Amino acid sequence: MLRISRRSEKAGLPPGTPVYVGKKRTAKVEFSLIDYDLDGFERTKLSAVEEMTLYRTTSKVSWINIEGLHESEIIEKIGGIFGLHPLVIEDILNTDQRPKMDIHDDYVFIVMKMHNLDDETGVVDVEQVSMILGNTFVLTFQERPGDIFDPVRLRIAESRGRIRRSGPDYLAYALLDAMVDSYFSILQSLGDDIEELEDELLANPTSATLSRIHFLKRNMAYLRKSVWPLRELINILKRQESELIQDSTVIYLNDLYDHTIQVIDTVETLKDILAGLLDIYLSSISNRMNEIMKVLTVFAAIFIPLTLIAGIYGMNFDPASSPLNMPELKWYFGYPFALGLMAAVGIILFIYFKRKDWF
Amino acid sequence: MLRISRRSEKAGLPPGTPVYVGKKRTAKVEFSLIDYDLDGFERTKLSAVEEMTLYRTTSKVSWINIEGLHESEIIEKIGGIFGLHPLVIEDILNTDQRPKMDIHDDYVFIVMKMHNLDDETGVVDVEQVSMILGNTFVLTFQERPGDIFDPVRLRIAESRGRIRRSGPDYLAYALLDAMVDSYFSILQSLGDDIEELEDELLANPTSATLSRIHFLKRNMAYLRKSVWPLRELINILKRQESELIQDSTVIYLNDLYDHTIQVIDTVETLKDILAGLLDIYLSSISNRMNEIMKVLTVFAAIFIPLTLIAGIYGMNFDPASSPLNMPELKWYFGYPFALGLMAAVGIILFIYFKRKDWF
Amino acid sequence: MLRISRRSEKAGLPPGTPVYVGKKRTAKVEFSLIDYDLDGFERTKLSAVEEMTLYRTTSKVSWINIEGLHESEIIEKIGGIFGLHPLVIEDILNTDQRPKMDIHDDYVFIVMKMHNLDDETGVVDVEQVSMILGNTFVLTFQERPGDIFDPVRLRIAESRGRIRRSGPDYLAYALLDAMVDSYFSILQSLGDDIEELEDELLANPTSATLSRIHFLKRNMAYLRKSVWPLRELINILKRQESELIQDSTVIYLNDLYDHTIQVIDTVETLKDILAGLLDIYLSSISNRMNEIMKVLTVFAAIFIPLTLIAGIYGMNFDPASSPLNMPELKWYFGYPFALGLMAAVGIILFIYFKRKDWF
Amino acid sequence: MLRISRRSEKAGLPPGTPVYVGKKRTAKVEFSLIDYDLDGFERTKLSAVEEMTLYRTTSKVSWINIEGLHESEIIEKIGGIFGLHPLVIEDILNTDQRPKMDIHDDYVFIVMKMHNLDDETGVVDVEQVSMILGNTFVLTFQERPGDIFDPVRLRIAESRGRIRRSGPDYLAYALLDAMVDSYFSILQSLGDDIEELEDELLANPTSATLSRIHFLKRNMAYLRKSVWPLRELINILKRQESELIQDSTVIYLNDLYDHTIQVIDTVETLKDILAGLLDIYLSSISNRMNEIMKVLTVFAAIFIPLTLIAGIYGMNFDPASSPLNMPELKWYFGYPFALGLMAAVGIILFIYFKRKDWF
Amino acid sequence: MLRISRRSEKAGLPPGTPVYVGKKRTAKVEFSLIDYDLDGFERTKLSAVEEMTLYRTTSKVSWINIEGLHESEIIEKIGGIFGLHPLVIEDILNTDQRPKMDIHDDYVFIVMKMHNLDDETGVVDVEQVSMILGNTFVLTFQERPGDIFDPVRLRIAESRGRIRRSGPDYLAYALLDAMVDSYFSILQSLGDDIEELEDELLANPTSATLSRIHFLKRNMAYLRKSVWPLRELINILKRQESELIQDSTVIYLNDLYDHTIQVIDTVETLKDILAGLLDIYLSSISNRMNEIMKVLTVFAAIFIPLTLIAGIYGMNFDPASSPLNMPELKWYFGYPFALGLMAAVGIILFIYFKRKDWF
Repeated sequence: MLRISRRSEKAGLPPGTPVYVGKKRTAKVEFSLIDYDLDGFERTKLSAVEEMTLYRTTSKVSWINIEGLHESEIIEKIGGIFGLHPLVIEDILNTDQRPKMDIHDDYVFIVMKMHNLDDETGVVDVEQVSMILGNTFVLTFQERPGDIFDPVRLRIAESRGRIRRSGPDYLAYALLDAMVDSYFSILQSLGDDIEELEDELLANPTSATLSRIHFLKRNMAYLRKSVWPLRELINILKRQESELIQDSTVIYLNDLYDHTIQVIDTVETLKDILAGLLDIYLSSISNRMNEIMKVLTVFAAIFIPLTLIAGIYGMNFDPASSPLNMPELKWYFGYPFALGLMAAVGIILFIYFKRKDWF
Repeated sequence: MLRISRRSEKAGLPPGTPVYVGKKRTAKVEFSLIDYDLDGFERTKLSAVEEMTLYRTTSKVSWINIEGLHESEIIEKIGGIFGLHPLVIEDILNTDQRPKMDIHDDYVFIVMKMHNLDDETGVVDVEQVSMILGNTFVLTFQERPGDIFDPVRLRIAESRGRIRRSGPDYLAYALLDAMVDSYFSILQSLGDDIEELEDELLANPTSATLSRIHFLKRNMAYLRKSVWPLRELINILKRQESELIQDSTVIYLNDLYDHTIQVIDTVETLKDILAGLLDIYLSSISNRMNEIMKVLTVFAAIFIPLTLIAGIYGMNFDPASSPLNMPELKWYFGYPFALGLMAAVGIILFIYFKRKDWF
Repeated sequence: MLRISRRSEKAGLPPGTPVYVGKKRTAKVEFSLIDYDLDGFERTKLSAVEEMTLYRTTSKVSWINIEGLHESEIIEKIGGIFGLHPLVIEDILNTDQRPKMDIHDDYVFIVMKMHNLDDETGVVDVEQVSMILGNTFVLTFQERPGDIFDPVRLRIAESRGRIRRSGPDYLAYALLDAMVDSYFSILQSLGDDIEELEDELLANPTSATLSRIHFLKRNMAYLRKSVWPLRELINILKRQESELIQDSTVIYLNDLYDHTIQVIDTVETLKDILAGLLDIYLSSISNRMNEIMKVLTVFAAIFIPLTLIAGIYGMNFDPASSPLNMPELKWYFGYPFALGLMAAVGIILFIYFKRKDWF
Repeated sequence: MLRISRRSEKAGLPPGTPVYVGKKRTAKVEFSLIDYDLDGFERTKLSAVEEMTLYRTTSKVSWINIEGLHESEIIEKIGGIFGLHPLVIEDILNTDQRPKMDIHDDYVFIVMKMHNLDDETGVVDVEQVSMILGNTFVLTFQERPGDIFDPVRLRIAESRGRIRRSGPDYLAYALLDAMVDSYFSILQSLGDDIEELEDELLANPTSATLSRIHFLKRNMAYLRKSVWPLRELINILKRQESELIQDSTVIYLNDLYDHTIQVIDTVETLKDILAGLLDIYLSSISNRMNEIMKVLTVFAAIFIPLTLIAGIYGMNFDPASSPLNMPELKWYFGYPFALGLMAAVGIILFIYFKRKDWF
Repeated sequence: MLRISRRSEKAGLPPGTPVYVGKKRTAKVEFSLIDYDLDGFERTKLSAVEEMTLYRTTSKVSWINIEGLHESEIIEKIGGIFGLHPLVIEDILNTDQRPKMDIHDDYVFIVMKMHNLDDETGVVDVEQVSMILGNTFVLTFQERPGDIFDPVRLRIAESRGRIRRSGPDYLAYALLDAMVDSYFSILQSLGDDIEELEDELLANPTSATLSRIHFLKRNMAYLRKSVWPLRELINILKRQESELIQDSTVIYLNDLYDHTIQVIDTVETLKDILAGLLDIYLSSISNRMNEIMKVLTVFAAIFIPLTLIAGIYGMNFDPASSPLNMPELKWYFGYPFALGLMAAVGIILFIYFKRKDWF
C-alpha cells in the first residue's frame, strides 16, 4: 500500500487542532512511568492522566511512556500538564510527520519513525514515535505498545552504565540510540533477504523474483525517507546550545550521529545492490530467453532441409517418360540413400552450428 | 497540452504593462470583503473597486478576495488604491509566474499555484493565486471563483482558533496553509490513481497503462514545479524581519514549512514509485511477449519433425525395385506405426521442452 | 553541425589580439545611433566610427548599435574611443564566448547569446550580442543586422514607459529584457514542435520521428548552455554596487531575473518532456514490432498443423497391403473429411490463441 | 557476501560497552613496540599489557601495534592505561565503523579501512585499522597480523627520511600514508582485472564475464565507501589546530590529501569504465544473438520456397485427364528442371539477402 | 590502456623520495633558457645544471624549460638550486599527479596535464607539465620535447604584446594560456571525429562504430579529469594574494578562467553528444535488425499457406472410391487452378501485409 499522508483529512481545520490521523484503535491508552535518580528507582503504571502532574517538577528524572494516540483528548490533557504548544500536540497526533526536531523554550520536541519488520510477510510497518525532553522529564509517545525501549528500562533498573547518574538528556539520548539500533536489525533482515534473493537469482530467476526486488526497493525507499532527516536532526541536536543538553552528553550524541551515518551508508549500499540485482535479473532473464529461442531456431533450421529432401523424393516425376526422371526411386539402395542423406545433412548442420557455438 | 509560458505575447512591451495572459473569460470580476477583529465581523460583496479605499487603513483586518483577472483595468485600479508597484500588477496578471515572494517596503507580494484535479478526466489544472499582505489588509487574486479559502472564511465567521485575535499576517498564514492543504488532497487523488494503476499492471497491462503512467508522470512534474519554489518562499518568509510578520506567527510559518516539506517528500516518493511502475510495466510487457513467442516457437518445433516423418512416407521410392525401398508402406501396421511414431516424437519433444521449463 | 569553439584558430596569439572568429561576411558594418533624454530624441546612422567620439560624454543617453563584427579594425577603433580594455575587444570579436559579465571601473561588459529559429528548417542559429554599459552611453554589438531591439527603439521614440526618464542602466535593462523575451518566443516554437511530435508519436511513429526528437534535444541543449549562465549574470548584476546601476533599476533587474528563471524552468521542463517522448517512442516502436511478430508467429503456428495433416494424407502407405493402411483414402467422404479436419484444427487454434489474447 | 553492519548484536547495551563484532579468532593478541628518537631505536614484543605503562610518557616516540581485537578485556585495559574514553574503546572493537576521526583533548582517534585483495579468488577483504595519536605515543590496532606497516618500520630502523627526527604526528602521517599507498596497489590489481576483462569482452563474452563485471562493481563500491570518508578525515586533520599536529607536518598531510584525491579519482574512473564495460557487454551479447537469429532466419527463408516447389511437383494432378495437368512430370528433363529451379531460386535468394547485407 | 596511477611502485618509500614513474627514456635531458626584460633578450641551451645558479636572482625574467624527467638526480639538483621542497621534487617526477597548485613561501608550484592527439591512431596521450613560478624566474618541466610553448617563445623574441614589459607572473599566465589553447585544438579534433561518426551512424552503422563511440567516450573522460581541476586551480590562482602575482595580471587570469570554463563547457557538450550518439546507434541497430526480421517473417508467412495448398493436392485420396475425393485432380484446368490459387493467396497476403505497413 502506498503511504500518502492522510493530512488531507484535516484540511481547513485551524492549526493546532488535535486530530489523530493514524489507524483507529480501541485498546486503552497506557501510561507507564519510570522515576529515577542515582539513589532510587520506581516503575509504575499510571491510572489517570492527572497523576502526571506530580512528576513534572520532581528533582528525579521522570520518564513517562504513552502507548496509544487514538484518544486525542488524553494527549491534549498531557499537553496541558506539561505546557506543550498546541502545534506540538497536533504534530504528536499527526503520525504522517517526517522526522524532525523543534526546540522550544523549555522543552525539545523530537519526532522519529520506527520501522517494524513483519518476519512472515516481510512487510515493513512504520510507526511514529514522538519525544518531549523537558527539564526533569522525558515523555515518549508510541502509536501502540512496543518493546523497543525495554533495553533502556533494563539499564535503568539494573543501573548499568551512566544512565542513573545522568539527567533526562542522557535518557533521551539512550532512547534515540535504542531507535537507531532498531534500524540496524531491520537492515540486517533486509540484507539477509537480499542475499537470499541473490542466490535465487543465480539458481532460478522467476517473475516472483522481480516483484520481490521491487518490494524490497520500496521498503528501502521508505527507510531512506526516515533516516536521512534523522541525520540532520541529530546534527542539530548535538550542535545546539540549549541548557537542556549537558556538555557531557554531547560526546554521546556524536557517537549517535556516527551510528546514524552508518545506517544511511548501509541503506545506500543496499539500495545500490538492489539496483544491481535488478540489472542482473533483467539480463539473466533475457539471456535465458535468448538461449531458448536460439536452441529452438537451430532445431528448426536443422529440420528444414531434411523436409526439403523428403519433399523432393515425394515429387511425382514420371520415371517412365525419361531415364533422368528420379532414377533414385528405382535404385536398390534408394530409400536408405535418402534416409542417409537426411541423416548426413542433419548431422553436418548440427556440427556446424555447434562449432559456431550457436547453442 | 504543454504549458509553455505565454509571456511571448507581451514581448516588446515596457515592463509594468498590465496584460492578462490567462484564458479569456467573460464573467464579471467579483470582490468579496471580510472585515474583522476580535469583537466584530462583516462579510459583504463590494460593488465597485472604489469602495476598497475605505478598508485600506482601518484598524480592523480587511481581507478582499478578487475573483477574475481578465479585466486588467480593474486590477490596475486596485493597484492604485493600495499603492502597488506596476511590476506587481504585471505579475498578478501574468499568470505564468512561478511561485515567488517579493518583499516591498509596506507590503509583501506572494505568488502561488493552485492545482485543481478534474475528477473525471484526471487532468490537473493550474491556476495562479496572488496575495498582497499589507499593514491592515490582505488582498487575494484568483483567476476564477473557487472554494479553496472557504474553511478560512468559516473559521473567521465562527471565531475558531486564533484567527480573530490575530493580525493580517496570521490571516495570510491561514490562507497559505489552506493552499498547502489543497496539495495534500491532490496528492491523495494521484496516490489513489497510482495504486489503481499498480493493480492494473499486475492484472492486465495494456498500452493504455503506459500512456496513463506518462500522463501521471507529467502531472507530477507540473506539481513539482509548483511546490519546490514554495518551500524556498516559505523559508524566506519565516526568516525575514519585516514588521509585517509578528513573532507569534513565526511558529505557524515553521509548521507550514514542515507541511511543505512533507508535500515535497510525497511528490518525490510518488515520482519514484511512478518510475518504478514504468520499469515494471516495461519488463512485464516484454516478459509476456517473450512467453508468447516461446510457446509458439515450442509449438512449431514440435510439429516440424512430425511433418518430416509425413514427408518421408510421402516419398515415391519404388518398392518394386528393391525390398529395401520403403518396406513400411506394405507393412500390415505401417500406417498406425507412422502415426504412432509421430505421436511418440511429439510427446517426447513436448515432455523434453516442458522438463527444460521452456514453456 | 557541432558548435565547437573556433578559438583554436587564435592559439598562440597574445591575449587581447582582436580576431573575429565568426562567419566571414562582406556587408558593410553599420552604426545606428539613438540619442535621447526626457525632452528630445534623435535617431541617425553614423557614417564613420570617428563620429562616435561626440556622443561619449554628452548628458543625454547615447545608444550606438554596431551591426557586423567582421572588420576587426573598426571594433578596435571603437574600443579606443570608449576606452575599452583590449581583452574586452577580443571578447566582443570572439563570438564563441559563453554569456558572462565583467565589471570594469567605468563600464560594464555583458556578453549574451541570441537564438534565432529558422522557421523552415527548424534550425536554431546562435548569435553573440555584446553590450557595453557606460556612464552616459550603451554600445551594442551584433554579428549581423537584426530586429530584436526594435520594440525598445519604438518605446524610446514614442516615449512609452519609464525609458526616456531613465538613464543608460535602464536602457541596458530594457535591451536585456528584449533578449530574454526572444527566448520565450523560441521556447514557444519549440513547444509547438514538441506538441506536433507528440501527436505524430501517437499516430504514426517513424524513424524520422526519432531523428526529430534528437534534433530537438540538441537544440534544447544549446539553449540550456545559453540560459544557465544568464541567470548567474543577472544575479550578479542586480547585486553589484557599481554606480552605473541606479537603485530604481534594481527592481527591474529583479523582474528580469524572475523571467530568466522562468526561461530556465521552461527549458528544463521541455527537456524532461523530450526525454519522456523518447521513452514513449522507443516503447511504442518495440510494441509495434512485437505486435507484428506475434501476429505472424500465430499465423505460422496455425498453418503448421494443417500442413502436417496434408503431409499425413500424402503418405504412400499401400492400402492393398493392409486394411489398416490409410483407409480414409478410400472413404466416400475422405477428402471432405481431411479438409474439414484442417478447417477445424485451424479454427480451434485461432480461437484458442485469440482467447489467450495473443494477437 | 554482503557486508551489513553487525552492530545489531549490540542493540540495547549501554554505549561504551566494549564488544568485538568481527570474526572470532583464537590466536594470541600480540603487542609489538618500537621506541625511538633521533639517537636511539628499540624494537621489542611486549609480553603483557601492563608493560605499556612505561611507554606512556617517555620523551621518545613510542609506537605500539596491537594485532588482534578478539579479546576485548585486553583492549579495555589498554584504554585504561592510555586514558581513552569508553566510546573510543567501543569504536576500536566495533569493526564495522566507517573511516572517521575524533579529536579528544589529549589524543586523536582515527579509524581507517584496509582492503586486502586475495590474489587467487579476487575477493577484497576489509579490515579495520584504528590509530591513537597521543602526545608521545602512537597506538595502532589491527584485527589480525599484517605487513602493511613494515616499510615504516624499516624507515625507522634505517633512519631514512625525516622520521627519526620527527614526533608522533609524523609517525601517524607515515602510517596513514602507508595505508593510502596500499589502496594504490589494490587499484592497480583491480585495473589489471578490468583490462583482462576488456580483452575477454572483445574476444569471447560469456555470462561469466557478466558476473565478473558485477563482482568488480561491488568491490569498487566497497572501496568507494572506504575512501570517500578518508578524504574528509584527512582534510579535517590538516586543518585542525590541535597541539598534537606540528606545523612542519601539515605539508605532508597536504601531500597525503593529494594522494587520497588521486585514489578517489582512480576509483571513480574505474567505476565509470566498469559501467562502460557493462554497456559494451550487453550490446555485444545482444548483437551476437541478433546475428545468429538473422543467419538462421535467412537460412529458413531460403529453404521455404524450395520446399514449396517440391510440394508442387508432389501434387497428384492426373496428367491423363488434361494435357495441362503437370506436363512437366513427363518432360524428359523434368526432374533436372525441378532440381535446377530449386537451385536457382535458392541461389538468387542467397545473393539477394547477401546484397542486402542481411547476414 | 587504462591509466591507473603507477604510484604503487613507490609504496613504502619515505615521502619526498624522488622517483620518476613515467615511461623510461634514454634521450639526454635538455635545458633551454630564455632570459629577457624590456630591453634585451637572450636564448641559449644550458649545458649543465649548475649554470642555472646564475639565473636565480637576476633582475631579468629567466625562463628555464627542462625537457625530460627520467634522470631524477638532475631534477633533484635543480630543486636544490632553486630551493624547492622535496615534496615538490617528488610531485614533478610523479607524473601521475592530477592538476593542482601549491603555494609556497617564495614560489608557486603548478601541475598541469597536456593532451597530445596522435592524428593517425586517434589516441590521446597525456603528459604532465609542471611549472615553478618564482620571484624572477619560471621553471617548466616537460616529460619529452614538445612545441607547445613555441608561440610564447616567439612573442618574447618579437616582443609582441605585453610580455617583455611584464614580470614572471605574466610569463606563467602566457604559458598556462598556451596549454589551455592546446585543449581547444584537441577538442576541435575530437569534435571533427564526432561529426564523422555521426555521418557514419546515419549512413552505415557497424560494430566498429560502437567501439569508436566507446573509444571517444574514454578519451573524453580522461580529458574531463584533466580540465575540471584546472578550473579550480586557476580560480585559486586569481584570488590568491601572493606577492608573486601582480594586480595587472589578475585581469588576464580572469580571461584564462573564462577560457577554462569554455573548455569544460565544450567537453561536457561533447560528452552529452556522444551519449546521444550511443543512444541513436543502439536504436538504429535494433531498428535495422527488427526490419530484417520483419521482412523475413512476412516472407515466411506468405509461403506457408502456399505450401499447405501444395500439400493438400499431394494427398493420396482415391478418386476412384468417391466422386468427392479430390475431383480437382481430374479437372482439365486442375493444375493451372492450383498454381493460380497459390499465386492468388500469395498476392493477397502480400498486399495485406503491405497495407498494414508490416514491411
